[in-house]
Amino acid sequence: MRVVVIGGTGTIGSAVVKELKPRHEVIPVGNTKGELQCDITSENSIRNLFVKIGNVDAVIVAAGEVHFDDLSEMTSEKYDVGLKSKLMGQVNVVLLGTPYLNDNGSFTLTSGILSYDPIRAGSGASLVNGAIDSFVRAASIELQRNLRINAVSPSILVESMPTYGSYFRGYEPVPASKVALAYSKSVEGLQTGQVYRVGS
Amino acid sequence: MRVVVIGGTGTIGSAVVKELKPRHEVIPVGNTKGELQCDITSENSIRNLFVKIGNVDAVIVAAGEVHFDDLSEMTSEKYDVGLKSKLMGQVNVVLLGTPYLNDNGSFTLTSGILSYDPIRAGSGASLVNGAIDSFVRAASIELQRNLRINAVSPSILVESMPTYGSYFRGYEPVPASKVALAYSKSVEGLQTGQVYRVGS
Repeated sequence: MRVVVIGGTGTIGSAVVKELKPRHEVIPVGNTKGELQCDITSENSIRNLFVKIGNVDAVIVAAGEVHFDDLSEMTSEKYDVGLKSKLMGQVNVVLLGTPYLNDNGSFTLTSGILSYDPIRAGSGASLVNGAIDSFVRAASIELQRNLRINAVSPSILVESMPTYGSYFRGYEPVPASKVALAYSKSVEGLQTGQVYRVGS
Repeated sequence: MRVVVIGGTGTIGSAVVKELKPRHEVIPVGNTKGELQCDITSENSIRNLFVKIGNVDAVIVAAGEVHFDDLSEMTSEKYDVGLKSKLMGQVNVVLLGTPYLNDNGSFTLTSGILSYDPIRAGSGASLVNGAIDSFVRAASIELQRNLRINAVSPSILVESMPTYGSYFRGYEPVPASKVALAYSKSVEGLQTGQVYRVGS
């Protein structure tokens, strides 16, 4: 299969590339790094990416920002960061990428544990992750040509503990290599409309 | 208790007003109807409402639009309708209303069955409802002064069947009066961080 990994230079993305590379033609796409780049907050940037790479059998997105702050400090503008990036960035990859996905192809998006297991300062991430999970369930029943869509919802990564560990005390950290297996299941299996929880 | 019902002139809202009125001081707020009005897509309109009504013991929101369209016809702009209205409208009521909520008070928001039980043309509603459910879980652990927050997630209403019934074939319609009980449980009980599914 020909598989594009948007966010393929990040912690999860590079583990996904490593997992899929032995069996597939994998195209990693960075945000500001690498040969191919895509800013998912820009519809034009997404369009340009697909024009450049052409048809694929699987689109993986492991990219997107959210703003973390105490609820009492949150504002509409701070929620907008996640709405424009992690949420609508991924949704727009689906909307704009569908014509470039071969029959029986798949989308795999990234949400996260905070949709159902919240932490302090995480309401922006919770909101966005919950939206992605429900979007995937909804989109799966409407996609044509046997296209599929799933989400991977990981816990805190082992690799992210030095940076974010203090927010996630008591959560069992999961290695990116284990999270990558869920993307493999989504791409190489036949399920659709699923949210794969990893490390919870 | 002093209870404000934003969307209090709508199908759900008026049933909620009817349920709570015998026991509480209920303040219905319409979008474009009634004595008090609030456009939840405008932060200024929300601010003005709270300045006008002052402190309350419970804030209920049963308002917010989403755009329905086939996935293949959806665009970023069409998702924005729901993001700005039903999602961020309700979130902004929480952010801006918190200072006006008395200790031990509650917020009750409205999501809907499509977060987990999707229909054709409903991906915009699914996405928004999933976001609200997860926001409520996250916000509940951060609210101070013993404030609480829950969501009511209703199925299709009996009263809405003439308009939307064709989208919801096979769903058991639930009367607005039964949905109103969930708002009563949220306001008059002590639970927080809950999503009350009604009619599923």
